[in-house]
Amino acid sequence: MQIDVSDIRPLAIGCGLLGSGGGGDWQIGQLFAEQAISDHGPVDLVDVDAFEDDALILPVAMIGAPTVGAERLVTGSEGLRLTAYVERLLGRPVQALMAGEIGGMNGVLPIGWAAVAGLPLVNADGMGRAFPELHMNAMYLAGVPAAPVVLTDERDNVATFDSADGPALERLVRSAVTALGGNSAMALHPMTAAAARDAVVPGTVTLAYELGRRLCDRGDDPVASLLAHRGGRELLRGKIVDVERRSTDGFARGSATIEAFGDPDRLLRVEFQNENLIAIDGGEVVAVVPDIIAIVDVHHGVAIATELLRYGQRVAVVAFPSAPLWRTEDALAIAGPSAFGYAVDYDPIVSAP
Amino acid sequence: MQIDVSDIRPLAIGCGLLGSGGGGDWQIGQLFAEQAISDHGPVDLVDVDAFEDDALILPVAMIGAPTVGAERLVTGSEGLRLTAYVERLLGRPVQALMAGEIGGMNGVLPIGWAAVAGLPLVNADGMGRAFPELHMNAMYLAGVPAAPVVLTDERDNVATFDSADGPALERLVRSAVTALGGNSAMALHPMTAAAARDAVVPGTVTLAYELGRRLCDRGDDPVASLLAHRGGRELLRGKIVDVERRSTDGFARGSATIEAFGDPDRLLRVEFQNENLIAIDGGEVVAVVPDIIAIVDVHHGVAIATELLRYGQRVAVVAFPSAPLWRTEDALAIAGPSAFGYAVDYDPIVSAP
Repeated sequence: MQIDVSDIRPLAIGCGLLGSGGGGDWQIGQLFAEQAISDHGPVDLVDVDAFEDDALILPVAMIGAPTVGAERLVTGSEGLRLTAYVERLLGRPVQALMAGEIGGMNGVLPIGWAAVAGLPLVNADGMGRAFPELHMNAMYLAGVPAAPVVLTDERDNVATFDSADGPALERLVRSAVTALGGNSAMALHPMTAAAARDAVVPGTVTLAYELGRRLCDRGDDPVASLLAHRGGRELLRGKIVDVERRSTDGFARGSATIEAFGDPDRLLRVEFQNENLIAIDGGEVVAVVPDIIAIVDVHHGVAIATELLRYGQRVAVVAFPSAPLWRTEDALAIAGPSAFGYAVDYDPIVSAP
Repeated sequence: MQIDVSDIRPLAIGCGLLGSGGGGDWQIGQLFAEQAISDHGPVDLVDVDAFEDDALILPVAMIGAPTVGAERLVTGSEGLRLTAYVERLLGRPVQALMAGEIGGMNGVLPIGWAAVAGLPLVNADGMGRAFPELHMNAMYLAGVPAAPVVLTDERDNVATFDSADGPALERLVRSAVTALGGNSAMALHPMTAAAARDAVVPGTVTLAYELGRRLCDRGDDPVASLLAHRGGRELLRGKIVDVERRSTDGFARGSATIEAFGDPDRLLRVEFQNENLIAIDGGEVVAVVPDIIAIVDVHHGVAIATELLRYGQRVAVVAFPSAPLWRTEDALAIAGPSAFGYAVDYDPIVSAP
């Protein structure tokens, strides 16, 4: 199976949904990937089971505040530089790239980097969604070391980290990203296909494509079609009446308040840290991380990245399940409500039947 | 020529002088180097001219606020880890270590690391003194790239930087050092002996030893003996009556005020950023960077590191010339008064005849 130029838009729209508002602006990812495939040809999409056991797979992503990412474009050479540096450190060739997170821009950029590097892309990712912190991924949960982590920016700076995993690594890398100007391209958790089989979320590139195709198919109600396919529910339709945001510690934090159509007294607030984390309807929590909360523009039928939310947008707020691995107790400790400082229980959104 | 345990104390005292108050506490360096040589044997001291042209020389140092360094001891394995990582990145063996800066602890620690690693030490350093910022060194001045810069701390974290040189690299590395807890061991400017011959300050290990021996020789007046050997002059003798300090941006900044013996109205202020930068007697600048300003404890005959200055110490403040390379216009732009925000002309201290 190959990813060609015409596949990119539905795929990018699906990544926008899976991003829970984060992972960066999927439209920038779309433009870059379309151009890269036009220049270098289609990208082979390969299931993780189809690789030889010892094939080296390299997860890649942009890291940093998406508010910065929107203003610092990728140049295309990042994937080559990351791959070359990892090969220099490990002394062996990289055989495929993989999206570190399938959400937002980060689900789409690796396709473009794979096209430029002439490498296949793994039909999988490290999260099944987007998350704001480095260690909130399936590889960390499975015990695959993150090191060597390699960062590079558009001025050809390269920084690498070989360090304890988890929150300590997150702090170290985040400080370097801030020093690099707020965002950069990153490779982490290089691993063999044998290790990857138990440590990635499989099938998420085709999942993003399927979700995006349903939203692109502007039939009666694409949001309803989406929820019928994936489960979850629509929390509210209405107009954004307030957006509050601040960039702190390298993250884009804030909230959006949506007033229900026909019911100005009903307000739903979505709080985010790069990604939408919690939806509060009146005083009641109606959806919370690790379930995916997407704010869909009802006119354009696409999810809006948190950094692009603004007053007056007409939206449907939907919540649907992320990959099942995030519902275990260990996973919730890493990326559940308490990991983001919310003292609420996780009450899972119901999946599709 | 070999460095043995008995050479370390005079050598460390000389490094304390050359450090201009910085480079970290030379007494910690002394204890570490003495122990390392006791455990692993003496270290060969080799002039840079004596190496084969293609021998790889690795400058090493601690970087960070010395106020933090005083509380985080070296473990001894830093030199091995730095050497191994540079060898991994460059694909060839390191043949000698060199002090990145001869000043303070940083003049002495590399002797201990060389003992542990079983490598010779180059009789040279990158500054001829100590300076607070990464790019204030002879290799940068000569155009030798800093990359790859490797950092490691006592918890085995490793970070590397392959980046533009100069102030941009300084900012990037400084942020990582802060994230690593305030200080760490560092390798930078790996170079061949051929490149080093035009890019280091030669003979500074033996110079430190000679200066230290003069201070150790508690004859009539060791400070006078020192100045007769090296040039420069005594600015004031007196008692420290005030010390002000703050740690900002990873640096230890502040000032010490010394009241002249027998003349309580005469106050000399020394301002520092890790190193002593300027001495002001009344309103008049009497010495300024890149000349070396040392505050010598007159009871113990040793220079006091900036982080160990305190009220009541009886001191002689001396100023003497650093290596001649710092007196060119290019060098003064990097490490002269204006580089530290002082709008004063550089009026060189007179060298010994």
